Amino acid sequence: MTRKGMIIVLSGFSGAGKGTIMKNLLKAHPGQYHLSISATTRQKRQGEEDGREYFFKTREEFDQMIADNQLLEYATFNGNSYGTPRSYVEQLVNEGKDVILEIEIQGALQVKKLYPEALLLFVMPPSADALKERLVGRGTETPDVIAQRLAISSKESQYMNGYDYLVINDQIENSVEQVHAIISCEHFKTARNEDTIDMIQKDLKKFEGR
Amino acid sequence: MTRKGMIIVLSGFSGAGKGTIMKNLLKAHPGQYHLSISATTRQKRQGEEDGREYFFKTREEFDQMIADNQLLEYATFNGNSYGTPRSYVEQLVNEGKDVILEIEIQGALQVKKLYPEALLLFVMPPSADALKERLVGRGTETPDVIAQRLAISSKESQYMNGYDYLVINDQIENSVEQVHAIISCEHFKTARNEDTIDMIQKDLKKFEGR
Repeated sequence: MTRKGMIIVLSGFSGAGKGTIMKNLLKAHPGQYHLSISATTRQKRQGEEDGREYFFKTREEFDQMIADNQLLEYATFNGNSYGTPRSYVEQLVNEGKDVILEIEIQGALQVKKLYPEALLLFVMPPSADALKERLVGRGTETPDVIAQRLAISSKESQYMNGYDYLVINDQIENSVEQVHAIISCEHFKTARNEDTIDMIQKDLKKFEGR
Repeated sequence: MTRKGMIIVLSGFSGAGKGTIMKNLLKAHPGQYHLSISATTRQKRQGEEDGREYFFKTREEFDQMIADNQLLEYATFNGNSYGTPRSYVEQLVNEGKDVILEIEIQGALQVKKLYPEALLLFVMPPSADALKERLVGRGTETPDVIAQRLAISSKESQYMNGYDYLVINDQIENSVEQVHAIISCEHFKTARNEDTIDMIQKDLKKFEGR
């Protein structure tokens, strides 16, 4: 059974915990998942490294990547653009690897359009109040910014049906293993195993007409 | 998260081990899965009980069930008819339970047509030779019958793409847990959780326009 590589998109509301799920997933299953590194026009922050957190690009370089069709998806927030470099993702998938993109909802839907076989996971909190509590609990945002994020979450929730699976992030350990299980099971889809089906069909032919 | 009941169809080549997977799955996860009991026109064998192995019916009763649209699917083998009673399956699914049907390929495709949300699992051996070895190893069939079954398997393999998932039965314990994992993960599909999505969408509305 040749295991085909997969594009996995993890997104969800701001504060739903997708970053923590990602970090723990990579730690729990080392070498099994590859993280796509985004290109961005935003300024490098202290402690960040080009090619680790992001590929840092000038506006001109970023626009050129768009023009050259080098980005799988891209979107702009607060004047900064973010995008997923196509070549890196496609190379890994062709090598049979699973690549995870942690991106926003608009980008996720762009990816699904381009690669219908991409696996879209939506991380959500158990309730709206739980989402608010987490944003407040972080203590990093003003009440205004939190209110704005919650309003955006409500808008974003209209796109949840475009995803393949829901991950209700109640207990982080459960969510991490749920994401891992979903990806593992998806590898057994008939649509992802046409080579195996073709192989057994040809192999069984020898028993016909005896 | 209200868990919706699911119709799960397990089929595959004769000798692929689907019966053993079923038996072990029910034992490993007691109370979690419900087995659909087929109606049949074949004679009751010694030790069998009506309503346990099968619902034993006369030809007239069986034909009446077909006429009354009481069967989800049915098929005839060696002059005996077998079918899945609809009411029992639908009742369990409506109660949120997972019902497993161990049926032949033609019946499986009938079920998928009627219930597109049914989950179809195809059990296959690692290779054609492995299938032959298992049929021979059973020691219960003549070489002629084995040759006939293998020829049928080749024909049946043309329908594998109509299934949702492949289960390559190499190690029985692995296959049992794979089936369990696939079913568990399927419950997180967005398409199976429209109530949950609806709930969070409505819940988040309160954060809009503040």
